[in-house]
Amino acid sequence: MKISIYQASAPRFVNILGNLSAILDKAQAHVEAKKLDPLALTAYRLYPDMLPFTRQVQIACDTAKGAVARLAGVDVPKHEDVETSFPELKARIAKTVDFVKSFKPEQLDGAEDKNIHLKLGTREVSFTGMQYLFGHALPNFYFHVTTAYNILRHNGVELGKRDYLGNP
Amino acid sequence: MKISIYQASAPRFVNILGNLSAILDKAQAHVEAKKLDPLALTAYRLYPDMLPFTRQVQIACDTAKGAVARLAGVDVPKHEDVETSFPELKARIAKTVDFVKSFKPEQLDGAEDKNIHLKLGTREVSFTGMQYLFGHALPNFYFHVTTAYNILRHNGVELGKRDYLGNP
Repeated sequence: MKISIYQASAPRFVNILGNLSAILDKAQAHVEAKKLDPLALTAYRLYPDMLPFTRQVQIACDTAKGAVARLAGVDVPKHEDVETSFPELKARIAKTVDFVKSFKPEQLDGAEDKNIHLKLGTREVSFTGMQYLFGHALPNFYFHVTTAYNILRHNGVELGKRDYLGNP
Repeated sequence: MKISIYQASAPRFVNILGNLSAILDKAQAHVEAKKLDPLALTAYRLYPDMLPFTRQVQIACDTAKGAVARLAGVDVPKHEDVETSFPELKARIAKTVDFVKSFKPEQLDGAEDKNIHLKLGTREVSFTGMQYLFGHALPNFYFHVTTAYNILRHNGVELGKRDYLGNP
């Protein structure tokens, strides 16, 4: 019984966001080599009513910063959704990683039992900190990173699972 | 400091695998309503060198059963990859859920520091139990479930994020 909620959250977000940033480098190199309009990838959706690539990256970032902020009991910083290019999305990721890294493990101590209240669209949901992290934030985070990866793969960017997993 | 490695693993796999099973029901209903060949979905790949839908489901199952078995220090049961239909894939998921549910929390106690040795293709990797769960098994598991979801969404099956998240 000795996993802290910090260990299960902050370093996990930082690792995968770093991998996502490196994936964006490969996407940028791909559009340059093929002389593509980057928007062909950054605005791409796997289906018309799914969110485009940019939103997948932005939501992954927001899920990470929201999780550590709520668990630590501090305000969630607002990052405007204005990015359209790979370099802009990389800057959004870097800003998120800096925020997540700014927390000390002690700031999240005991958050596993904390009440976390969320608005999800029109619904209001209450979780314990542990349920919020494991049942909501982490699955959501991985969902959006994987969907970003799948959009690039579907469009021919050469990536493999190791780009996603990195070196945990 | 009071999250057990059991809480971070078994119930999480069971929740998402149940959601995936309900997603397969919606996919089955979709192919029936549209009079499609189910193989148009179960054999679908988002890109020619990506794995088809069936393998995404099988690997999600294997990641879950492998994680709890390795953390508990028991042999990983072998499930042959023979499924081609949605009902067969649902049975594979059910078999996996039964296996994951067969573990008691005490069987995973202390596994966070246990040495876990894995063969990943041609590479051999050693993890601590915690690193294996958080840095490898969970991200991999969510990757394959999300990719299965994305394949269905890309092909017009009506699903939303709540189908994936369920009720944690």
